Amino acid sequence: MKLKGSIKNIISCLLIALCNIAYGQKSIPIPNKSQLVWQDAELTTLISYDLHVFDGKRYNQAANRINPIADYNIFNPTKLDTDQWVRSVKDMGAKVAILTVTHETGFALYQSDVNSYSMKALKFQDGKGDIVRDFVASCRKYGVLPGLYIGIRWNSNYGVYDFMVHNDNSPFAKNRQQHYNKLCEQMTEELMSRYGELAMVWFDGGAHGPELGGPNILPIVEKHQPNIIFYHNTQRADIRWGGSETGKVNYPCWGTYPFPYSHSTNTKEIFKNDFQLLKEGDPEGEYYMPAMSDAPLRGHNGRHEWFWEPGDEKHIQPLESLMDMYYGSVGRNSTLILGITPNAEGLVPDPDVNRMKEFGMEIKKRFSSALGRVSGKGSNYELKLKSYQKIDHLVLMEDIAYGERVREFSIEAKTKKGWQLISKGTSIGHKFIAKFGQIEVSALRLNINKSLAEPIIRDFSVYNSSSNP
Amino acid sequence: MKLKGSIKNIISCLLIALCNIAYGQKSIPIPNKSQLVWQDAELTTLISYDLHVFDGKRYNQAANRINPIADYNIFNPTKLDTDQWVRSVKDMGAKVAILTVTHETGFALYQSDVNSYSMKALKFQDGKGDIVRDFVASCRKYGVLPGLYIGIRWNSNYGVYDFMVHNDNSPFAKNRQQHYNKLCEQMTEELMSRYGELAMVWFDGGAHGPELGGPNILPIVEKHQPNIIFYHNTQRADIRWGGSETGKVNYPCWGTYPFPYSHSTNTKEIFKNDFQLLKEGDPEGEYYMPAMSDAPLRGHNGRHEWFWEPGDEKHIQPLESLMDMYYGSVGRNSTLILGITPNAEGLVPDPDVNRMKEFGMEIKKRFSSALGRVSGKGSNYELKLKSYQKIDHLVLMEDIAYGERVREFSIEAKTKKGWQLISKGTSIGHKFIAKFGQIEVSALRLNINKSLAEPIIRDFSVYNSSSNP
Repeated sequence: MKLKGSIKNIISCLLIALCNIAYGQKSIPIPNKSQLVWQDAELTTLISYDLHVFDGKRYNQAANRINPIADYNIFNPTKLDTDQWVRSVKDMGAKVAILTVTHETGFALYQSDVNSYSMKALKFQDGKGDIVRDFVASCRKYGVLPGLYIGIRWNSNYGVYDFMVHNDNSPFAKNRQQHYNKLCEQMTEELMSRYGELAMVWFDGGAHGPELGGPNILPIVEKHQPNIIFYHNTQRADIRWGGSETGKVNYPCWGTYPFPYSHSTNTKEIFKNDFQLLKEGDPEGEYYMPAMSDAPLRGHNGRHEWFWEPGDEKHIQPLESLMDMYYGSVGRNSTLILGITPNAEGLVPDPDVNRMKEFGMEIKKRFSSALGRVSGKGSNYELKLKSYQKIDHLVLMEDIAYGERVREFSIEAKTKKGWQLISKGTSIGHKFIAKFGQIEVSALRLNINKSLAEPIIRDFSVYNSSSNP
Repeated sequence: MKLKGSIKNIISCLLIALCNIAYGQKSIPIPNKSQLVWQDAELTTLISYDLHVFDGKRYNQAANRINPIADYNIFNPTKLDTDQWVRSVKDMGAKVAILTVTHETGFALYQSDVNSYSMKALKFQDGKGDIVRDFVASCRKYGVLPGLYIGIRWNSNYGVYDFMVHNDNSPFAKNRQQHYNKLCEQMTEELMSRYGELAMVWFDGGAHGPELGGPNILPIVEKHQPNIIFYHNTQRADIRWGGSETGKVNYPCWGTYPFPYSHSTNTKEIFKNDFQLLKEGDPEGEYYMPAMSDAPLRGHNGRHEWFWEPGDEKHIQPLESLMDMYYGSVGRNSTLILGITPNAEGLVPDPDVNRMKEFGMEIKKRFSSALGRVSGKGSNYELKLKSYQKIDHLVLMEDIAYGERVREFSIEAKTKKGWQLISKGTSIGHKFIAKFGQIEVSALRLNINKSLAEPIIRDFSVYNSSSNP
């Protein structure tokens, strides 16, 4: 089965490459199948859960990284319901949910046979709990794609700081580094092999490999999960960080990038101008690596919390902020990863659930009923409406299976006063959304003025957000 | 109940003190009730068990201390039978068995709720195993007193070397030290409170307290186990190390000692002349603290193994070596602690069991049928036999509840040639054994030439070891 899939992929790549050559262009980077699924998802979530959710204290990341948790048996989510978590994801319309299996305490949310600092140690569920198992089962039940986040960069329990066993260069410290690296590899093996096909694996801060004294994670992931979105190490990233935790990227935000890694190395060039390269990509980049836009739902008005804490309800992003993120991520060829925070009871709190639902409904309201749409190949498209109609949004999508080809475009609308320029841009990629003041139009024209190869437009559609109450 | 016991103890101490004053002597250190039980036990055992028993490799202590175990699930004693362990102890005639709950790997042989690196982590017995529980139950079943050995000085998993989190003096290392100290206290709390009354707790290498940056163990032990033999920290030791791992002490080996601790501090004075002070004690010492004599059963002919390893059967001490230890420990006012090694199957191997049984039988053979005995108060005793009989051993015991009083004694025997000096010595304490070539005697005299107060002789008896086949 896997082999067949690979052969198909190879043939598909070859065809696309041939097509590019026929067009007389240099090769255009194209996404693999998993990247296509990832970008089609558009909305994804990161569900963060760790021991300190239960400590009743304000989370302080710097302190958390260097303070082992006093008592891991505080972990006791008496109403744990991963179905409820995933329903909230589904209600928001997100297609992928990613769970933090380990974060900075080092505690693992499953039945590990290699890391004793895991759910086997708990009184909770008599030591038989496995939140990864429950979470993946809930994802399958609701048709949400599961992904796993594995934090190996920090581990306050084992004494790991920024990938390294905190040490004095003694043989002891070197042995423990080796042991820790092996532990990371073995956990990756368990997580990649036990829970079926995963959409994504996220090694936060990267998974520094043997070249930097770290574990050799990538071959293990590749062995068990050939179709996974791998994010990331110094060799490989299938998506890149979008350069902020605001849920937005810059415009343009190209799906291509000049390095095969996100930001694990060459940080001088990548981090300059406030992460500009991450936020914008590189239209000349030879690697297909779209940007993700991550932000916590509880990130409003002076807070920025990936984990649940009491009293943060008032910091849940207002609907309009979430819509701004939507435009600033999905509307700019990026994927939104919204941070969700189950509480100490084991539930996503009601105010969060409600806001996520509102967010999903608002997106539907604005974009589910196109007043008209066209698609096809070529540089010029005309979209005729049945009559003069009010519109306030338009959406463009390239068929990025063939690569991001468009480099410059403009859109005119036929108003009662004649044709008017209403939008223009550079990058389209998976999706470009323009929002504008309501205008009455009877037709639109998309003119692609510059492209690397024949443009393939998957969708050109227009909407009136106030027409769907 | 506890209060009544304490009051009884106080009254008893006061009476003894008054008695000493009446005799016109300075106060003589006297053992507490637990020390009396301990010395009456005479033969005890240390049962050592840890992860590396299962690794099939030769144990290398220096390496073990700085190499975390690669896979703790190697721990899988499929024939585990702590009844069999304790039967072997019982067959040897030992009254106390001490189990290593944690040794240098840091792995804990019970259901800890504070140390995830414990039996909850194992596949073995579906993570429900508790060898401390099983061991204590077996001890109760066979009437052997249980004790626990808790190693906190080394922990290769947590990264602790000689009590200290291996570190670079960063805040992180300091936090982890604090966390480790707390962990040691919490484990002590669990172990002291969960398994009923324990005869002994052994913190190997000591339990350095807050004064040295370590955990505060002693109050926890004292709270839960008021009658325990505590061994040891910088403040307190109820027994002292005998200065070697040969199973022997020097002669004389006084039950008194000049410091309240064994060898956790002031090592310059204590360690000089090859640990002379530990091996001999101090007749002027103001603390009652008898010496223990520890040695592994598998310590013959170039090996000295506290843990089981394949192929060490030929290094089991021969019976005569064990008898030498018996004379060199029990016969010198010390307690023998013999190291027993359950194997990877979970059983004390047959050759070890058989040798322990032989040892117990040989002691019985030599000492179970006294040809005559006397006891009483005063400096001169005559032991008359019914007729001329062959003897080759004699035993002296002071009633050490009143302190070790004798400082010099001699023994004469009435042979057919008249009275002959056959033994003399300084310390008697709990027990003094003399072994000599067979002689035919009809009476013996014990003359105590020097003592701190009126001697109280619990037993003066003679034996013919060849008379009990």
